[in-house]
Amino acid sequence: MESKANPFERLVHALGRLPGIGERSALRLAFFILKNKPEFADDFARALQELHAKMRFCSVCQNMTEVDPCPLCQDPKRDSKMVLVIETPQDLLAIERLHEFKGLYHVLHGALSPINGVTPEDLKIKELLFRVQQQALEEVILATNANVEGEATGLYLYKILKPFDLRITRLPSGVPVGAGIEYLDPLTLQRALQTRHPF
Amino acid sequence: MESKANPFERLVHALGRLPGIGERSALRLAFFILKNKPEFADDFARALQELHAKMRFCSVCQNMTEVDPCPLCQDPKRDSKMVLVIETPQDLLAIERLHEFKGLYHVLHGALSPINGVTPEDLKIKELLFRVQQQALEEVILATNANVEGEATGLYLYKILKPFDLRITRLPSGVPVGAGIEYLDPLTLQRALQTRHPF
Repeated sequence: MESKANPFERLVHALGRLPGIGERSALRLAFFILKNKPEFADDFARALQELHAKMRFCSVCQNMTEVDPCPLCQDPKRDSKMVLVIETPQDLLAIERLHEFKGLYHVLHGALSPINGVTPEDLKIKELLFRVQQQALEEVILATNANVEGEATGLYLYKILKPFDLRITRLPSGVPVGAGIEYLDPLTLQRALQTRHPF
Repeated sequence: MESKANPFERLVHALGRLPGIGERSALRLAFFILKNKPEFADDFARALQELHAKMRFCSVCQNMTEVDPCPLCQDPKRDSKMVLVIETPQDLLAIERLHEFKGLYHVLHGALSPINGVTPEDLKIKELLFRVQQQALEEVILATNANVEGEATGLYLYKILKPFDLRITRLPSGVPVGAGIEYLDPLTLQRALQTRHPF
């Protein structure tokens, strides 16, 4: 089918397969690209072509990288005793943007979700265990999302990491900066109360 | 800059330049493509590469096509005495999907908008005039959008086409099928009343 359709139709088809882009949006985007300079489509095409050839996942932290191990894992200025576990590379970028955390990362590439068929074998948990066993880690921060899947994943990791001589920490749930107590959902409020700390 | 960044960053950059896709969505889409099979990125890239080389605009109706004149303009079964004028190729597709209209089209590629610097020279109006002068047309249907720019464009076209021996028609404004009179905006209602027709 792909080879029979014209480039425009194939482009609409490809765009329409992206998450959150429907048929109408795909059409609109394809016309945008067609009306734009050919260089835009060329640069776009080249990035796509080189993507899988040049980008891989770091064998240590599982983040996306051009070199393995990734620059972060190779950086001598980072504290290699501390590993922050997150679900996605996007989470990693969000934390890196803070310029606050100086340890290393471990990207799970998802969260446990029996309902969607995501089991521990589908996540980079074996690789995390390997790091815990091989490297002299002092602290593992479980920063999975604060939703059902993220919580389940955090709890699962806590159980399998507990036997090791490690500090295992998590991020608190609490009042977002700028938000009022009144509007907070009861679960967050309850958890914030339970984890209150000295002023 | 393009050549220095890695393929992933360049892909995020290209996706982020598409209308309606912000930085965060671009990142999400790029990860989707990276996690998908390499064949998806390859097909996508090939469509983009061939887009400008293979797709052009029909010299008659100005719609996008691989051959010139386009298959629609070459189709002997279409009524070549009737030309329906629309703003975009998307409008053309919407009408073609009805399998109702049997005439030909003329795509303006936009609507007059002095505020955005779109003048008659920016639209395919010269080409429409050429058709009116060269071909023995009987009817021109002005189906520009029912917004300020579309109305202005329709009026402009009406004025320049009036001297020719042509039936010039437009689409009515009226009650959308399934909608209640009560909820219709006053302008549409007013115009529907003015263009009421025998039952």
